[in-house]
Amino acid sequence: MSTNDLGIVRRTIVRADAQAVARLSRFGVATVHEAMGRVGLMQPRLRPVYPGAHCCGTAVTVLLHPGDNWMLHVAAEQIRAGDVVVAACSSECEDGFFGDLLATSFRARGCLGLIIDGGVRDVRTLTEMGFPVFSRAISAKGTVKATLGSVNIPVVCAGALVNPGDVVLADDDGVVVIPADHAGAVADAARVREDGEVGKRARLAAGELGLDMYRMREALAQAGLKYLD
Amino acid sequence: MSTNDLGIVRRTIVRADAQAVARLSRFGVATVHEAMGRVGLMQPRLRPVYPGAHCCGTAVTVLLHPGDNWMLHVAAEQIRAGDVVVAACSSECEDGFFGDLLATSFRARGCLGLIIDGGVRDVRTLTEMGFPVFSRAISAKGTVKATLGSVNIPVVCAGALVNPGDVVLADDDGVVVIPADHAGAVADAARVREDGEVGKRARLAAGELGLDMYRMREALAQAGLKYLD
Amino acid sequence: MSTNDLGIVRRTIVRADAQAVARLSRFGVATVHEAMGRVGLMQPRLRPVYPGAHCCGTAVTVLLHPGDNWMLHVAAEQIRAGDVVVAACSSECEDGFFGDLLATSFRARGCLGLIIDGGVRDVRTLTEMGFPVFSRAISAKGTVKATLGSVNIPVVCAGALVNPGDVVLADDDGVVVIPADHAGAVADAARVREDGEVGKRARLAAGELGLDMYRMREALAQAGLKYLD
Amino acid sequence: MSTNDLGIVRRTIVRADAQAVARLSRFGVATVHEAMGRVGLMQPRLRPVYPGAHCCGTAVTVLLHPGDNWMLHVAAEQIRAGDVVVAACSSECEDGFFGDLLATSFRARGCLGLIIDGGVRDVRTLTEMGFPVFSRAISAKGTVKATLGSVNIPVVCAGALVNPGDVVLADDDGVVVIPADHAGAVADAARVREDGEVGKRARLAAGELGLDMYRMREALAQAGLKYLD
Amino acid sequence: MSTNDLGIVRRTIVRADAQAVARLSRFGVATVHEAMGRVGLMQPRLRPVYPGAHCCGTAVTVLLHPGDNWMLHVAAEQIRAGDVVVAACSSECEDGFFGDLLATSFRARGCLGLIIDGGVRDVRTLTEMGFPVFSRAISAKGTVKATLGSVNIPVVCAGALVNPGDVVLADDDGVVVIPADHAGAVADAARVREDGEVGKRARLAAGELGLDMYRMREALAQAGLKYLD
Amino acid sequence: MSTNDLGIVRRTIVRADAQAVARLSRFGVATVHEAMGRVGLMQPRLRPVYPGAHCCGTAVTVLLHPGDNWMLHVAAEQIRAGDVVVAACSSECEDGFFGDLLATSFRARGCLGLIIDGGVRDVRTLTEMGFPVFSRAISAKGTVKATLGSVNIPVVCAGALVNPGDVVLADDDGVVVIPADHAGAVADAARVREDGEVGKRARLAAGELGLDMYRMREALAQAGLKYLD
Repeated sequence: MSTNDLGIVRRTIVRADAQAVARLSRFGVATVHEAMGRVGLMQPRLRPVYPGAHCCGTAVTVLLHPGDNWMLHVAAEQIRAGDVVVAACSSECEDGFFGDLLATSFRARGCLGLIIDGGVRDVRTLTEMGFPVFSRAISAKGTVKATLGSVNIPVVCAGALVNPGDVVLADDDGVVVIPADHAGAVADAARVREDGEVGKRARLAAGELGLDMYRMREALAQAGLKYLD
Repeated sequence: MSTNDLGIVRRTIVRADAQAVARLSRFGVATVHEAMGRVGLMQPRLRPVYPGAHCCGTAVTVLLHPGDNWMLHVAAEQIRAGDVVVAACSSECEDGFFGDLLATSFRARGCLGLIIDGGVRDVRTLTEMGFPVFSRAISAKGTVKATLGSVNIPVVCAGALVNPGDVVLADDDGVVVIPADHAGAVADAARVREDGEVGKRARLAAGELGLDMYRMREALAQAGLKYLD
Repeated sequence: MSTNDLGIVRRTIVRADAQAVARLSRFGVATVHEAMGRVGLMQPRLRPVYPGAHCCGTAVTVLLHPGDNWMLHVAAEQIRAGDVVVAACSSECEDGFFGDLLATSFRARGCLGLIIDGGVRDVRTLTEMGFPVFSRAISAKGTVKATLGSVNIPVVCAGALVNPGDVVLADDDGVVVIPADHAGAVADAARVREDGEVGKRARLAAGELGLDMYRMREALAQAGLKYLD
Repeated sequence: MSTNDLGIVRRTIVRADAQAVARLSRFGVATVHEAMGRVGLMQPRLRPVYPGAHCCGTAVTVLLHPGDNWMLHVAAEQIRAGDVVVAACSSECEDGFFGDLLATSFRARGCLGLIIDGGVRDVRTLTEMGFPVFSRAISAKGTVKATLGSVNIPVVCAGALVNPGDVVLADDDGVVVIPADHAGAVADAARVREDGEVGKRARLAAGELGLDMYRMREALAQAGLKYLD
Repeated sequence: MSTNDLGIVRRTIVRADAQAVARLSRFGVATVHEAMGRVGLMQPRLRPVYPGAHCCGTAVTVLLHPGDNWMLHVAAEQIRAGDVVVAACSSECEDGFFGDLLATSFRARGCLGLIIDGGVRDVRTLTEMGFPVFSRAISAKGTVKATLGSVNIPVVCAGALVNPGDVVLADDDGVVVIPADHAGAVADAARVREDGEVGKRARLAAGELGLDMYRMREALAQAGLKYLD
Repeated sequence: MSTNDLGIVRRTIVRADAQAVARLSRFGVATVHEAMGRVGLMQPRLRPVYPGAHCCGTAVTVLLHPGDNWMLHVAAEQIRAGDVVVAACSSECEDGFFGDLLATSFRARGCLGLIIDGGVRDVRTLTEMGFPVFSRAISAKGTVKATLGSVNIPVVCAGALVNPGDVVLADDDGVVVIPADHAGAVADAARVREDGEVGKRARLAAGELGLDMYRMREALAQAGLKYLD
C-alpha cells in the first residue's frame, strides 16, 4: 500500500486465467496450500457462515474502514461474473458490514462469494440464498457510509496479501490466495499432490503405517527417538 | 447498579406491552437494531447454541457471580409466560451455569429462552428440546450455589444495559434489547424499514447498483473518489 | 513432565478397564465431570469439528511442537482398538496438524477419535467419515516433520493432565479425563447422579421449583436475600 | 440507551457532590469496589497508559463509533474543572481515538483524566504531561470525524453503566464507577473498610493467620475440609 | 487430579533440596527452560505485576474456584520460609484473588512470591513491598470465601503441571517449573549452558556470525536454501 | 508471496534513501501514519519490550515458521548498518524466537532493532542493552532450527506488507512501514503536519476549543447534532 492508495477505484484489473481458476476450484484449500509451498493462507479466524460454504474466483479487493461499508457499494460496480470480493479493513472491526441486500446485488453482478476480515449479518438469508461468505464474525451491528477506502488495490486480508485478479479459494478449511500468475502452475501441482494421495489413502486404510509408507523410521532414530517398554 | 443491589429479588416488574412484543418478534435482530438507531445490541460473542435458535420476550434479569448459578434458581420463580431470562455475570466466566434441568424448569414456567454472558451445557438436549439459548461459551464445567446475586435489577449483559421488562430479541445475527417504553415505536420503525427493503431487494436483484439506487455517486465524487483505468 | 521426557515412546501402557470405559461411554461429559467432583475437564476452547461428534476411549498421549506433526505418525503405531489420541503442544499453535490421511490411518488402527489442543483440516472429509475430532481450531495450514516430541508420556492438554491409558470422554459439551484407576468408581457415581436426575426432571417439568425441590429457601434467607415488590 | 439517544449533547448534568468526590479520591479502586458491594467495576482490559496513573472526578460521558473521534471534540466543550471523560464505543475498536492535542485541550478545560474503551496514542507525551488515561489499547491508528454519537447520555463502558455526573475513580487496579447519589455513602463505607484494614495488616504482618483472625476454621471444617499428613 | 482431591490440605510435602533451589535461583527462566529440554514452562499470559519481579522457591500449590479465594487463606498456614505459592483455578477467571493483606500474611510466613493463573489487585502496594507476583491479570474485583478447593495437591497452572515441593522460578521472561527430583541436575545443566554462552556472546559481539559459529551453512544448503543476488 | 518464495535469501535489496530515513526518524509513528493517509500501520498487538524503545531503519525481512528461528541466524549475515529486522511468521506463534545472543549478533552487524510478530526472551538483558524490540509476546520458550523460511522477500507482518528496504519506524505508539519509494515524500508530509500542530497545541492549551479551531460547528449542525439543556 502506498501513500496515495486511499480513495481509488481501479476499473481495469488483470484477472487470473479462467481455465486455471476452473481447475483450481476442484481442489480443497488444504491441498492448494500445500501445493503452493505452504504460503498464501489467510488466518483461521475467517470461518464460513454456514457449513459447506465454498467458492473459487478472481479477487475484486476492497479496503474498508471500521464501521463503514461504503466501499462495498462502490465495489459492486466493479464485479464481473466469476469474481469473489475480498474485503480488508484498516483496523480490526467485527461490525456487520454486509447483509442480504448487498448479497443480492453482488450475486446479480455475477459475484461468487465474499471473503471479509470483519463481520456480516442476515446469515439466515445468506444461508438460504447459498451465498458463500467467509468472515471473522457474525454481527447485527450496522455500518455507516462516510469514509473513502479503495477498490482493487493490493490489500492485506486476515494476514494474506491479495492483489486484484488473484484467485481466491475458500472452503470449510479456510481461505487461500493464489497469485494470478501462478494459477496454472498451482493447479498442476495440486493435481500431482491429489493423485499421490489416492494411493496413500488406500494403503493407510489397509493398516500400513505412515512410519513405513513415508520411510520415517531412520530419520526418527537419527534424531534420537527412543522406544521404551 | 447501586450499592444496595446485591441480594435483591424484585417481584413486580413492568413488562413491555405484549402486542408490541408480538410485533417485534416478526423482525430480525439486524432490522430492529437499525430501526433503533444502531443502539442496544449485545456484543457478538453471544452465539446461539444451535443454528436457527430464535426468541423474543420480556426480560427477567439476573446478576450472577463467576462459577455460581444460585440466582438462576431464584429467577425461575419470577418467570411468567413470555419471558426471556437475561443473565449477566459480575466478572467474565465461561462456566456452564445452565443445562437441561434448568431449561426444563424455565420452560415449565413459560420461559421462551435464555441470554447469558457465560457458558451453558447439555447443548444436545437443549437442541432436542428446541429451547433457544444464546451464550458466550459451551462448557461442561458445573457451578456452585453459594453467593447471592440479584434478580430483576438493571444489568449490563454483553455490553448492553437491560432493565427488567425490556424486550429481548435474539436470532442468528445476535441479541438486541428494546427498552419497554419504546417497544411499539421500534416495531413501527422496523416495519417501515422492512417494507422499504422489499423494493430495494428486487431492484438490486435486477442488477441495479446501490450506487444509483441510493444516489451515492455525487457524495463519493465530493469526497474525492478517483476512478483509474 | 521431566527433563528427559522428550524423544520418548512408551510402548507399554496400562489402559483403563475396558468394561469401565464401556460404562462411562454411555454418560455425557457434564454428568461425568460432576460425578468426579468437578475436576478433569479440558478448557472449553476445544470444540467438536462437527455437531454431534462423540467418543470415549483410552488415551494414547502425544506431545507435539508448534507447526510439527511428526509425532502423530509415531503415535499411530501405538494405537490399539478402543484408543483415543490426545495431542498436546509445547506452545499454543493453531496449525492444521491432522487431516483425512491421518484419520484414515488412525481409524485403521482402531482409534475412536482425536483430542488436540491445536488445529485440524479436511473437516469436510472428517465429517463424512464420522471420525470425531475435538480441536481448538480449524486450519488448512500444514505442518512439518522435523522435531522430536514424545508419545505416551503424561501431557497437559487444554489445561487437563492426561496420563496414557486414562479414559477420555468427549461430546458436544467438551472433553473430560478420567484417571484409569478411577474409571469404575466414576462410572458408578455417574450412574447414581443420572438416576437422580430422572425424577428431578419430571418434577421440574411439572412446574415444581428448584427452590423447593432442592430446599434452597432457607439458605437463601440466611444469606440475606430480600424480596421486594 | 433509547432510540433517540444518538446525536445528542446534554449541557446540563448533575455532578456528584464535590466534597464526596474529594473524599473518594483518597481511596484505592479495590477498596471502593468492596465498599460498594463489589459492583460498578469496569472490565480489567482497561489499563493505565503509564504506571501510577490515577484520577478521580465526575463523568462527562461520550458515545463514539468505531474509527471516529468526532464526539471527543464535542465533549471538550462540556468539560468543567474536576471532570473525567468516559468514552464508550458502539462496537469494539482499538483505534487511537485520543492523543496529545486532545489531552492538551481537555486539560485546558479542567479535565482530570480519560477513561476510554478504545485505543489512544502519543503515550510518551501523555506520560510527560502526566495526563492519566485508562484505555483498552495503545494504537497510532488515527480516526475520522464523520458520524454523530452523543455526549452526556448514559453509556456502558467496558461493562459498567456510567451516568453523566457519576464519580469515576481509576488507579493501577482498574476503574470503578460510583453513582452520583451514593458518593457520600460509599466514601463513608470505604473509610470504615480502610480503617478496619490497618489493624488487620499489623496482625498479619506479625504472623497471625487469616484463618484465625477471620475465624474461618469452623466454617472450613463444616464445609468438609480435610487435613492430611 | 483425582476424584477425591477437593477439600484436601496436605500438610507434609517433600520440598526440593534447598541447595539446589539456591543454585537454580541464580539462572534466568529462559536458561533453565532450555536446560530442561524445553519443557515445564507456564504459558506466557502470566506476567510480573512490576518490571524486574523475580522469585525462586518451592511450591505450595493451591486449587481455587472462580471468584473465590478462600483456599489462599488456608494455604498461608502451610507456607514455610522459601516457599512460593502457586495458585491454579478450576476455570478461567481474572478476578482479583490476592492483594496487599494476603501478601503481608504470606511474607510474614516466609513466602517468596506468588504465581497465580488469575487476577490480583493492590499492585501499587505489592510493588512498594517488592513482593513478586506473576498473574494473568490485574483486577480490583474482589472474591468470596465460600467453596472448598485444595492445598498441596498436583495442579495444572497456566498449562504446566506443578507438584507440591517442585521448584518454581519466575522472572521477566516467564515462569518455569522444575520437578523436585531434578532440581540438582537441572542446575548443573543450566550452569553448563550458561558457561557456554559467555564465549559465544563475545564472539558474536565481535561480529562472528551464528551461521559460522554454530556451523549451520552446510545444513542450510542441504535443506535447499538458495541465495539470490 | 509466490509459490517459490520459500528457502530464498535475497542478498541485494534496494534500501530507502538514507537521508530520508534520517528525516523520518525524527517523527513519531502517529504523525507518520497520518502523513501517509492512515495506511501502513502494524496491528497494535506489537508492543515495545521496554518503555521508550524506539527505532527507525531499513527493513531486512524474514519469514519464520512457528517454533523455529533458523532464519534469524541467516538474516544476521544480510544486515547492514542502519537496518531493522522485520520478522513475520507463517502462522501465529508466541514462542521466544529471539534473545540476547541474537541481539548481540544483530547489533554487531549494525542492526538498529527488531520487529517480530512472535515472542522474544531475555527482556531484562535487551533492556540493559537498550536494543529496541517490538514483539507480540514475551516468552522464555525456545525454538528449533529445522525448517527453511526466507530472507528479504515481501512479508506480511502484524497485518502490514513490508518489502525489503522499506523504512520501518517504531515507538511507544506502534510500528509503521513506509515504502522505500515514498520515504522522502512522507518525511515532507510529516514535517508539514508537525509544523501545523505546534500552533494548534498552543491554541488548545489556551482554552480554545477544537470545535472552533477546526470549524466543526456547522458540520455538526448539518449532521443533526442537538444540544439539550
